[in-house]
Amino acid sequence: MTQHITIVGVGLIGGSFALALREAGVDARFVGVGRNQQSLERAVERRIIDSWHISAADAVAESDLVLLATPVGAIDYVLQQIGPALGPETIVTDAGSVKQSVIDSARARLPNFENFVPAHPIAGTEHSGVEAGFASLYQGKRLILTPVAETSQAATKTVAKLWQATGAVIEQMEPRQHDAVFAATSHLPHMLAFSLVETLYRMDKESPVLRHTGGGFADYTRIASSDPVMWRDVCLFNREALLVSLDEFKNGLETLVTAIDEKDADTLEQLFITAKQTRDTKILPADKEKPE
Amino acid sequence: MTQHITIVGVGLIGGSFALALREAGVDARFVGVGRNQQSLERAVERRIIDSWHISAADAVAESDLVLLATPVGAIDYVLQQIGPALGPETIVTDAGSVKQSVIDSARARLPNFENFVPAHPIAGTEHSGVEAGFASLYQGKRLILTPVAETSQAATKTVAKLWQATGAVIEQMEPRQHDAVFAATSHLPHMLAFSLVETLYRMDKESPVLRHTGGGFADYTRIASSDPVMWRDVCLFNREALLVSLDEFKNGLETLVTAIDEKDADTLEQLFITAKQTRDTKILPADKEKPE
Repeated sequence: MTQHITIVGVGLIGGSFALALREAGVDARFVGVGRNQQSLERAVERRIIDSWHISAADAVAESDLVLLATPVGAIDYVLQQIGPALGPETIVTDAGSVKQSVIDSARARLPNFENFVPAHPIAGTEHSGVEAGFASLYQGKRLILTPVAETSQAATKTVAKLWQATGAVIEQMEPRQHDAVFAATSHLPHMLAFSLVETLYRMDKESPVLRHTGGGFADYTRIASSDPVMWRDVCLFNREALLVSLDEFKNGLETLVTAIDEKDADTLEQLFITAKQTRDTKILPADKEKPE
Repeated sequence: MTQHITIVGVGLIGGSFALALREAGVDARFVGVGRNQQSLERAVERRIIDSWHISAADAVAESDLVLLATPVGAIDYVLQQIGPALGPETIVTDAGSVKQSVIDSARARLPNFENFVPAHPIAGTEHSGVEAGFASLYQGKRLILTPVAETSQAATKTVAKLWQATGAVIEQMEPRQHDAVFAATSHLPHMLAFSLVETLYRMDKESPVLRHTGGGFADYTRIASSDPVMWRDVCLFNREALLVSLDEFKNGLETLVTAIDEKDADTLEQLFITAKQTRDTKILPADKEKPE
């Protein structure tokens, strides 16, 4: 039977989800929701969605499943809009980079909170918008589910199956553990990349540095090209865990700055050895991440 | 006529220089110098060098050109060793990431300072050692010359020609400008990558974060796998310029942390927009860096 799937936010994440499911041959009809009519029409042209609505409430009325793929900051509003319109069996899931705050919203806004399955695909590129989606984005990437005690096991299973069809590998975590781990491993690095580029932007006003950046700099600041609104929302909705990680980083950087200032060769070398060994032995390179 | 070229430090940089010149058909005989006999023998096996010496002074006696490709911290010592042994016409050049301190050493240590041509190839990988060298490392990459008033123009031209043969594109800068620019565009990003990985290493002792890092994290911390001794020396020998850049970064990070702490959505979004626009418009991606 054809599943009716609504995708709220037809950008990189939502668009790639639909394209991947189509490529996998899943029998589904996709309805897009967004604020920009032109983008939605373009999504129909790209055969990402079959039709669209501006109103999320209208779109979800007949849906079997709703994916919220907006920036995290918009999720509470969307949940508020769709809550009264959802059928009693409709599964709602999300793709937000932060989980506890989304779960809190869903609990407050949804009449059938047990049908809400919190999820986070660990995939992305520095591009965003309707043109950015592609079918293989999730291939071999992780999809983290963070169900809570009330979450329906059947609904969780349904969501997991769809993500498996996109090529993702399913993992499960506690919501708060998820938020702390991604604050350290993803949100913190993004903050440093944004802040590094912004620092050079400021320094460039005094004397030219930007025109001396090359391919190396472009590589390690790639993530500073990510969507500003998405990352603003990550900061606002994962504030506490992110501040903890930033504080840890500031302490480490201060140790490094002090060692440079004091010409402390041993501390510097030991710090770089620790970092190199950790990077070389504990962090799986991208090309070895895919499962067999 | 066969040129006699001595390479002090037959690692990624020195080894790739020799391999690139051989591939370009330059008629040269390469003598390697290093502390590790096994590595030198391996460099002969890989046809990087033709012969080797443990003593730099012995090696340079008959040389037309000497490339110092050791970490910056070893250059003063090597210059001191080779100074008295150099012929009056022998050109000495280096590949250090820091230029003013190397120039100061050369002025103090070399009887014919005019034959010293300070240089910095903007190329590298996160690998180091005799196995890391390869002929195409410098293809399309920049080679910065930082000659001073006393530097022989003929010597500068000879060094430039060799680097051109490796495929590098020659640029010229003032030594202090070079050190300030690379403190911001290269040394600072390396400090942040080392410090980020070291932060996660510390956090991992409290609760597991490292096993949740994936390909993305591996990509943006690639430079934290760089040679610890080389980077210790960059910190020690470009200390002042690096402290200036680190200070600018710390100020920028503090603005970001305060905005997160105060839930200041507008400041966060504007900061990320500035960074994204700068990254997207002012920084040449790696694949567009090569000259036509």
